[in-house]
Amino acid sequence: MQSEESYRDTFNAYLAEQFPEREPGQLYAPMRYILGSGGKRLRPLLLLMVADALGGNFEQALPAALAFEIFHNFSLVHDDIMDAAPLRRGRETIHEKWDANTAILSGDAMLIRSYQLFAGYDPPLYKSLVELFSQTALEVCEGQQYDIDFATRETVGMPEYLHMIRCKTAVLLAACVKAGAMIAGAREAVQRAGYEFGIHLGQAFQLQDDYLDAFGDPGTFGKQAGGDIIENKKTFLYLASLEHLEPDAGRELEHLYSVRPADSHEKIERVKELFGQAGAGEMAKEAVEQYTHEAFESLRQMGLGSDDLSQLLAFGKALMHRMA
Amino acid sequence: MQSEESYRDTFNAYLAEQFPEREPGQLYAPMRYILGSGGKRLRPLLLLMVADALGGNFEQALPAALAFEIFHNFSLVHDDIMDAAPLRRGRETIHEKWDANTAILSGDAMLIRSYQLFAGYDPPLYKSLVELFSQTALEVCEGQQYDIDFATRETVGMPEYLHMIRCKTAVLLAACVKAGAMIAGAREAVQRAGYEFGIHLGQAFQLQDDYLDAFGDPGTFGKQAGGDIIENKKTFLYLASLEHLEPDAGRELEHLYSVRPADSHEKIERVKELFGQAGAGEMAKEAVEQYTHEAFESLRQMGLGSDDLSQLLAFGKALMHRMA
Repeated sequence: MQSEESYRDTFNAYLAEQFPEREPGQLYAPMRYILGSGGKRLRPLLLLMVADALGGNFEQALPAALAFEIFHNFSLVHDDIMDAAPLRRGRETIHEKWDANTAILSGDAMLIRSYQLFAGYDPPLYKSLVELFSQTALEVCEGQQYDIDFATRETVGMPEYLHMIRCKTAVLLAACVKAGAMIAGAREAVQRAGYEFGIHLGQAFQLQDDYLDAFGDPGTFGKQAGGDIIENKKTFLYLASLEHLEPDAGRELEHLYSVRPADSHEKIERVKELFGQAGAGEMAKEAVEQYTHEAFESLRQMGLGSDDLSQLLAFGKALMHRMA
Repeated sequence: MQSEESYRDTFNAYLAEQFPEREPGQLYAPMRYILGSGGKRLRPLLLLMVADALGGNFEQALPAALAFEIFHNFSLVHDDIMDAAPLRRGRETIHEKWDANTAILSGDAMLIRSYQLFAGYDPPLYKSLVELFSQTALEVCEGQQYDIDFATRETVGMPEYLHMIRCKTAVLLAACVKAGAMIAGAREAVQRAGYEFGIHLGQAFQLQDDYLDAFGDPGTFGKQAGGDIIENKKTFLYLASLEHLEPDAGRELEHLYSVRPADSHEKIERVKELFGQAGAGEMAKEAVEQYTHEAFESLRQMGLGSDDLSQLLAFGKALMHRMA
């Protein structure tokens, strides 16, 4: 295997080559803009590294890696319209820089373009990859819908929440790992283990994100501290707290999640106290550890060489620490 | 071949079976709503009839026919958001009945679902169909973008306009005919002739729509007479008129297309006079005849049995007359 940097450079060069300027400009310029705005390229890197580690030709995996990266960016473009988000990766979102119609249509074209990337694979592999891709893409839409639904629902159960983050975050990582294994010609059992590795890694990642929103170091956590609390987002911390708080404290938490004070400082502090009282922070940390453990158990079942296993373990750990 | 009605019934039954109620409801209910709102089913019928006429098993063509129909409806859902259209087929549009976010996300899921319909085809046919589908879908997005661009551009050339309607309308009909031929296992030459049949039929259809907007019988034409003129749409009639009017009359037409009077009656009448003076109505009729002629020439090259050829000719003619 090569270094992470080396895979990233190769991937970025391939991406640039696949997105030359093209007419109509209003359709293709926004794609170039969002795809050129960086991002950590975690999903395509994971796909390339797995393909390489399993003995595949990692250059043959580039088109699939790009397809998943385009899909991920497509989903951000449309999600940002829905959330009326002004910024993404420190730059104006497409619907801000252009307009909502451009973001809708250009996003649609990205989704279609992502399918076209698979054209170079032989028919049986092509079919397997495209079916995995569609199934995953539909689950991501379902996850986004559940996320929207939960915002206006009175009660959300923890199993529903875990299903939502599985759809919204984990399946895409899982599909990248599986696609890498498929391209390398790995056995079904290896593909399945790879998929589980991605699922658990994605779940750990998302729960850590939930944890860090309330308890992370604002200096290193990339987002606004307490953002989920301000938005009244029903995250793991909130749902776990409701399960474990005494009735009075639970009602107070529910009340705090029904208001949006202009100055949110006091609300954030009180909510964090209630999270602490319920032990929700500890529970989140334990869940992250548990999912991370399961992820690495699945990774070990993929039958990789010891150097490759170490590199992928390090990549997975960095993924978790990068956000700590 | 069976009767048009019989294909439509089989298709509608298959569609209903493929869209049971499903969670999350907010994602899937809008799909059921738009797909159940009727429409003429022209694209899937064309696909089924061609597959049957070329000796294929038309039931094997049902999934592909549904994929194209879902894609068509997906494009209407997103176009209606962009146009802020309140009604579609006499019912509220999805962004009106629900909201714009629901229409965006549910539309995305429709596009992905349409790809999943191909799952039952053998890998080589699967790959050919999905590639045709993606290429076509991307061209439809490009056509939509050109259409949006033309609204704000000062000048549009006739070749650009013809390219736009080819992308926006014709390629989807063409792809349906070609897909029907592919599923029937027809030779490449037959597939190509079928594609050309669809392209010319689509072009004739669109130019007739342009013609009828100004010169059709308001009683039988399904849309608001003069709607394109009110909207200052640069249609075939407008572009042909600018090419053939004397400079003064041309400038008057351009001026009329720069204003939106509250009472549009006088404007519509004057624009129609200028169209008449330029001979644009006659030119449009001739172009429709020419494209229709070319469509039927291509259809004849498909090597169909004489009864099947007659039925498809009649279907094509009905398509043109249905709107007269």
